[in-house]
Amino acid sequence: IGPAYLKTAEESNHSRSSEVTKLLSQRRLPDHGWSDVHIQLFLSELAAMDSNNFLHNAGVGEREARIYNDLVRKRHFGFGHGIGRAGDIAAVQPKAAGSSLILQLTNYMVRDALQIAGIKAAKHCLCLPMATGMAMATVLQALKKQRPSARKVIWTRVDQKSCLKSILTVGCEPIIVNNKIQDDEVITDVEGLEQALLDSDLNDVLCVVTTTSCFAPRAPDAIVKVARLCRQKCVPHIVNNAYGLQSRRCANLLSEASATGRVDVFVQSTDKNFMVPVGGSIIASSSPEVLDIVRSDYPGRASMAPILDMFITLLSMGRTGYQNLLKEREELFSYFRDRLRQVAESFGERLLNTKGNLISAAITLDKASNPTELGSMLFARCVSGTRVVVPHGEKNVCGHTFLGYGSHGFPTPYLSAACAIGATKKDIIVFIDRLEHVLSHEYAKPVNRSPSSEFELV
Amino acid sequence: IGPAYLKTAEESNHSRSSEVTKLLSQRRLPDHGWSDVHIQLFLSELAAMDSNNFLHNAGVGEREARIYNDLVRKRHFGFGHGIGRAGDIAAVQPKAAGSSLILQLTNYMVRDALQIAGIKAAKHCLCLPMATGMAMATVLQALKKQRPSARKVIWTRVDQKSCLKSILTVGCEPIIVNNKIQDDEVITDVEGLEQALLDSDLNDVLCVVTTTSCFAPRAPDAIVKVARLCRQKCVPHIVNNAYGLQSRRCANLLSEASATGRVDVFVQSTDKNFMVPVGGSIIASSSPEVLDIVRSDYPGRASMAPILDMFITLLSMGRTGYQNLLKEREELFSYFRDRLRQVAESFGERLLNTKGNLISAAITLDKASNPTELGSMLFARCVSGTRVVVPHGEKNVCGHTFLGYGSHGFPTPYLSAACAIGATKKDIIVFIDRLEHVLSHEYAKPVNRSPSSEFELV
Amino acid sequence: IGPAYLKTAEESNHSRSSEVTKLLSQRRLPDHGWSDVHIQLFLSELAAMDSNNFLHNAGVGEREARIYNDLVRKRHFGFGHGIGRAGDIAAVQPKAAGSSLILQLTNYMVRDALQIAGIKAAKHCLCLPMATGMAMATVLQALKKQRPSARKVIWTRVDQKSCLKSILTVGCEPIIVNNKIQDDEVITDVEGLEQALLDSDLNDVLCVVTTTSCFAPRAPDAIVKVARLCRQKCVPHIVNNAYGLQSRRCANLLSEASATGRVDVFVQSTDKNFMVPVGGSIIASSSPEVLDIVRSDYPGRASMAPILDMFITLLSMGRTGYQNLLKEREELFSYFRDRLRQVAESFGERLLNTKGNLISAAITLDKASNPTELGSMLFARCVSGTRVVVPHGEKNVCGHTFLGYGSHGFPTPYLSAACAIGATKKDIIVFIDRLEHVLSHEYAKPVNRSPSSEFELV
Amino acid sequence: IGPAYLKTAEESNHSRSSEVTKLLSQRRLPDHGWSDVHIQLFLSELAAMDSNNFLHNAGVGEREARIYNDLVRKRHFGFGHGIGRAGDIAAVQPKAAGSSLILQLTNYMVRDALQIAGIKAAKHCLCLPMATGMAMATVLQALKKQRPSARKVIWTRVDQKSCLKSILTVGCEPIIVNNKIQDDEVITDVEGLEQALLDSDLNDVLCVVTTTSCFAPRAPDAIVKVARLCRQKCVPHIVNNAYGLQSRRCANLLSEASATGRVDVFVQSTDKNFMVPVGGSIIASSSPEVLDIVRSDYPGRASMAPILDMFITLLSMGRTGYQNLLKEREELFSYFRDRLRQVAESFGERLLNTKGNLISAAITLDKASNPTELGSMLFARCVSGTRVVVPHGEKNVCGHTFLGYGSHGFPTPYLSAACAIGATKKDIIVFIDRLEHVLSHEYAKPVNRSPSSEFELV
Repeated sequence: IGPAYLKTAEESNHSRSSEVTKLLSQRRLPDHGWSDVHIQLFLSELAAMDSNNFLHNAGVGEREARIYNDLVRKRHFGFGHGIGRAGDIAAVQPKAAGSSLILQLTNYMVRDALQIAGIKAAKHCLCLPMATGMAMATVLQALKKQRPSARKVIWTRVDQKSCLKSILTVGCEPIIVNNKIQDDEVITDVEGLEQALLDSDLNDVLCVVTTTSCFAPRAPDAIVKVARLCRQKCVPHIVNNAYGLQSRRCANLLSEASATGRVDVFVQSTDKNFMVPVGGSIIASSSPEVLDIVRSDYPGRASMAPILDMFITLLSMGRTGYQNLLKEREELFSYFRDRLRQVAESFGERLLNTKGNLISAAITLDKASNPTELGSMLFARCVSGTRVVVPHGEKNVCGHTFLGYGSHGFPTPYLSAACAIGATKKDIIVFIDRLEHVLSHEYAKPVNRSPSSEFELV
Repeated sequence: IGPAYLKTAEESNHSRSSEVTKLLSQRRLPDHGWSDVHIQLFLSELAAMDSNNFLHNAGVGEREARIYNDLVRKRHFGFGHGIGRAGDIAAVQPKAAGSSLILQLTNYMVRDALQIAGIKAAKHCLCLPMATGMAMATVLQALKKQRPSARKVIWTRVDQKSCLKSILTVGCEPIIVNNKIQDDEVITDVEGLEQALLDSDLNDVLCVVTTTSCFAPRAPDAIVKVARLCRQKCVPHIVNNAYGLQSRRCANLLSEASATGRVDVFVQSTDKNFMVPVGGSIIASSSPEVLDIVRSDYPGRASMAPILDMFITLLSMGRTGYQNLLKEREELFSYFRDRLRQVAESFGERLLNTKGNLISAAITLDKASNPTELGSMLFARCVSGTRVVVPHGEKNVCGHTFLGYGSHGFPTPYLSAACAIGATKKDIIVFIDRLEHVLSHEYAKPVNRSPSSEFELV
Repeated sequence: IGPAYLKTAEESNHSRSSEVTKLLSQRRLPDHGWSDVHIQLFLSELAAMDSNNFLHNAGVGEREARIYNDLVRKRHFGFGHGIGRAGDIAAVQPKAAGSSLILQLTNYMVRDALQIAGIKAAKHCLCLPMATGMAMATVLQALKKQRPSARKVIWTRVDQKSCLKSILTVGCEPIIVNNKIQDDEVITDVEGLEQALLDSDLNDVLCVVTTTSCFAPRAPDAIVKVARLCRQKCVPHIVNNAYGLQSRRCANLLSEASATGRVDVFVQSTDKNFMVPVGGSIIASSSPEVLDIVRSDYPGRASMAPILDMFITLLSMGRTGYQNLLKEREELFSYFRDRLRQVAESFGERLLNTKGNLISAAITLDKASNPTELGSMLFARCVSGTRVVVPHGEKNVCGHTFLGYGSHGFPTPYLSAACAIGATKKDIIVFIDRLEHVLSHEYAKPVNRSPSSEFELV
Repeated sequence: IGPAYLKTAEESNHSRSSEVTKLLSQRRLPDHGWSDVHIQLFLSELAAMDSNNFLHNAGVGEREARIYNDLVRKRHFGFGHGIGRAGDIAAVQPKAAGSSLILQLTNYMVRDALQIAGIKAAKHCLCLPMATGMAMATVLQALKKQRPSARKVIWTRVDQKSCLKSILTVGCEPIIVNNKIQDDEVITDVEGLEQALLDSDLNDVLCVVTTTSCFAPRAPDAIVKVARLCRQKCVPHIVNNAYGLQSRRCANLLSEASATGRVDVFVQSTDKNFMVPVGGSIIASSSPEVLDIVRSDYPGRASMAPILDMFITLLSMGRTGYQNLLKEREELFSYFRDRLRQVAESFGERLLNTKGNLISAAITLDKASNPTELGSMLFARCVSGTRVVVPHGEKNVCGHTFLGYGSHGFPTPYLSAACAIGATKKDIIVFIDRLEHVLSHEYAKPVNRSPSSEFELV
């Protein structure tokens, strides 16, 4: 091969190596996303650092990362040791230098991503191989180390089972603070929460749990005010920010709450924010204490799969790719809400005025004769993700009674939908089209509201 | 294409379909392993059943299993929804019929595999996307639902941090029963354990935890006797059977213990028993109660990756493949132990007589001048998995004091190694060769035993 | 799984199956591209129809499509039998019904794609596992069956070795018709070609070979006029339409030439027109004769890889995807030519007025002191694909003498570049930027044109 | 990560690099096969050297190796430029340093493999991206450059169309030398061949073509004697050694023929000898002349896929892996022939005594009432690769008349099968079992030989 051409190839190789070096030294997202060819190469280099891939390895332990099936080996790029050691889920594994490096780099890149999303308080981040609900439970478990006698969790109501169960799983008792309705929005009853604190023996309160990201018409909680209360009362405050990373508003709330009040840990989903398969979460904080307990209390090892998905995805997005995704979602959300308003009004319904929620939106279904049917009609037409809620009576969930469960406390029937990261204009157009189709079918019938039960598609 | 040839292709296709039907109806391992081509086809069919892969889907939820990067999408075969729902980790997901089916089939095949391995008591099985340590913690957490006031766990000592930490993580206090030495073996002090039960308020005892699989010279616990004690005292009994599936002896012990005493749950690792990457475990029982609590208490969703690895691997092994692996390991173990004895004796040491442990073996290092160096010398020569233990003094581990930690209580220095499932004759030969090399280097020096600390490579 | 959800999954599966049925019955590109998940599933289904993937196959032939390495097996999705049989490269293989089906469907979809691109004459198409040059040779070889005594090929000069060599390879002698310059364009000397026909014993002329797609300032040949001449003289006419599919102008020329004159076969590259790796070509015709000779004369089997690449790519593009690519390229080409004009004029050079060539464009380098350096400077800056040509003296190529080889006959130095299918706006912007950089470096020096040799980067 | 462990990872990485260096400098098969993880890493490194994978590339040529579909990109590991340049199929591509390196290394490793197989004469080797038949045609085409006026090919009859067609494709006329029967074997009629040479104007003879590997009862040609004749007469000699690499006997014949007579080129299949998908071949010689013509006459580029398959496979086998495959096949062949003899004799038939053919074997079907049915019955039972031949009358094949076509000239019905490289004991056992089944069904009927036509399954 001619030396001139080889030189260009070598220079290209050199510029690739310097991207790797930059990643290792700067410990943040690359400015521009890497191509799959380069990611694959880097993964292969890292896999070759794990002992199971050593050229002349002889394994005589009980765990040697042998992989029986080749489809399995290839889907894990040769990594088999998982992450963590007996002592610490973020600990380096002597046998698996490559896997260990991936875990560390992922945590660094995740921190950078949270800051790009606008959460300045994200000074310490841990990417965990468990989804949001289990991550919440793990954080609560860790708080119990700090407050061994506390057993109560003050929780602003959000009608998803997962968060409630994370409280119950660790053996705590939730004190449920019901929401208020203001205009069309379901918002935090800050006074009610303050009263709950006053009514409790604070030594008995493990923490306050609030939620930023949820389906309209519920708004993000008033976490700035709650954070100030928590600081005042010296009570820990955990924020369930499940898919809030994609909303600048949630990010700003978190930043302000952390700066002016108390936020101990905020928890994010990886799949909802970064378009990876379900299975990971990110716990973050402005201080390392709780995260250190979480990492060092984890018993044994864990799957590396959710970490590896994030590692690949973040390298692939790069800083600009991620910024563009956030920006495009915001722009698309305006379009989404406008179209939803039009279709609602054309059927004599209206868009709920939920200006605090910049991810999802909801329309009234006041005139529908049989609103609960709408959800299944939409799913049958390959629209996934809408929620049709018809509040009614009381329901017992995990031993606790909720009025109009599924509605977060909103009194009348509605349909909500979200415009989440990665949604395309085509998704929105197809959805609106099918929604119109379904509504026109429904609204031809005489309106005959039945007080039937909530209907949740997802 | 000529009709005769097409007919043969169709018949082959038909015989493939009937394999799928058989799997769905018989719910156990296929008799013979499937080829990767067939597994890939089945996975593709299943993936097409998940809503994110529907041809004309429009997603307007907050979680739509969008996958940003193509390497990530392909490694998950298009699956993105994970497993579980808010209510139950084994629940069916409406949006993900394919993923849900994989989870169910995996649980059925896992149960079959445990029975093939000889554990007749494995009537109910749950494959969990968390490694053994976390699975132990989850089981203990579930027991706390049944015995809310109990906080103590009686635990036969085994010097691995993971199990100890699973007890601590859930907020329990371990009552440690030290082992006895009998001949060369570290065995259960059944009388000590009985005394511990007598000394406790039984209402305060959450359970007894024993271990079957561990490194020589520790033997599997006397779980038959312990199970009888537990039945007598009405105390739950959890068995950590981490990699015991590969030993017919451990399987028989479990069967007998379950038949004649009380074993509530036994916990197995997927990576150690089935050669998949770290990240999964199997909890099994002869009755469904505890498993039901575990599945329904899990807060939210979880990664499907460890389940999918097992699904592929079990289809790929088939019944005969798995049986052969078990058989080959047993045969290789005899060879391994014989070679280890030879090399030990040639250096004036001896093989410890640990006839109860049929997975690992150990040799004395009584004459080594600097035994702790041997482990690192072996690792530097690409031998992974040996343990060199030099017992000495007391050590505080997670707030508990152990004499000679790392040795399970054995008094003199030794080197142990395992012949685990999937190990090849080449592994053993290379190991023995490098061990001889390292020993000959060490034993040329004058013997000068230093009372240095334990050394653990892994 | 709830029957409602399963029903939706089944309906989705059904709509997928109906896409397959449609493909098999309509035999053209799907309207919309298929997702990779669906393509993978279809490939798996097809692979399972080949005997090497039969569940219980026992192979005792000399060719059983056994595949040693798993990376190799997976990259071919389990296909191993290649295409063709002793008798015919397009023949069905009894042992490989799936592979055979792929070949047939690819040929149908390719025909549809050519018609979408605007070539109405593409009534018969054959996708061959050999690149354009070898395909040209194969076509010439086939013509020799029809005209056994003919040994001369009248060829309008194009300065690429591949076409010239395809004539020589089959043992023919080229009669080279030099081009004319008209304004800035290098065009067909139709009179010269007519003269060459008059000068020859027509029984001795195998065919006329013209070229549509080539680098500016050469224009596509005047194939309409040539086709009329060939019809008049009863001489076969082969058109090298290597990458002409992406230009509506080339497609129109071919349609008109076929309708009003004689075009026996036109040959296209798969990689240049459909963005697959190098290795395939498409030969097409309005009548089946020559194609039938090509297919039935091929000795033995051939690689299926280039066919499979096309199969996947065409399913993935679909009709609308392909149409969009064609449209986007045309739009981008205008931008590309405008930017090139600007940068040329800013350095006192000019864009050559080559309005007949709608894929590439060229600028003069009249004032460059050392034009040949520019190409290597651009490649060193990771710009690939430009050609810097400095015509000079005579050159002997494969035994034939060309004046100013590399320039197609153009008299002064120039730089040409293309805007081919799949190029992005970013490609163009980066190219223009680096070109300006390189020119500004070059043009600072005093102009000192050296009559050095041509420089070709590619 | 602790420095000690990192050091071991680095040393492992270093030992990997030194394997690469060794490959580049020694230019032969690695002693031991590489793991897929290491092969994947090396491929990724090489792919990053091709311009289409440069980090900041801007492509403005007409061929930029853009790849539309991601399944396609991944199956080619990012390689897109194919092999060869206008001038030479083995030429280095400036834009594709990685691809070019793979081609060179493959040719070196292939040469080594041929020598390992025992062909000392394989001093020059070229791995071509075309199957055996087309490679034969290409070699004949190249010979025509050396002997422009020669048009006749003396060919020892072998009843496969592919070789005959390769002669016809290049416009030559075959002079067919029929075989002799000696005992049970179909062997070369050396006297007949000598007479054919005497009868011809030697200037008119392009070459003699013989065959080593073919189905029993045909034996490998007497190539040593033929080679001596060719040397004597100064006539080129081409050996079709399609799958002869796997037989030490064929290798020895080639070595001796080359040493004591004239063998210009011998041609091998890649799929039949190295278990890769159909599509490649190896042409080899003790001198470079013909190979140089082949490589430099190839018009344009070609698919890299068959080369890449060989590259991966040879790295994966390594020297010892390949030697073991050869050895295992030989051992299995004895078993295969013994079993075939037993089953034949149990039905009153006998194994043909074809001691010269060490790859396939044949049994008589003298007593079968309807022998032609047996082949389709076997295929319907998923036995592929057997040939049932019932010689009868004359048949015209490609314009030439053959007596008893399909039998190579053997007079009575037989069934043949092969034990080729990669066959497993299970293949043989299943085959024998189904053969017995089919024969027992057939032989229950009264014997009633019908002079029906040949039946070829493959």
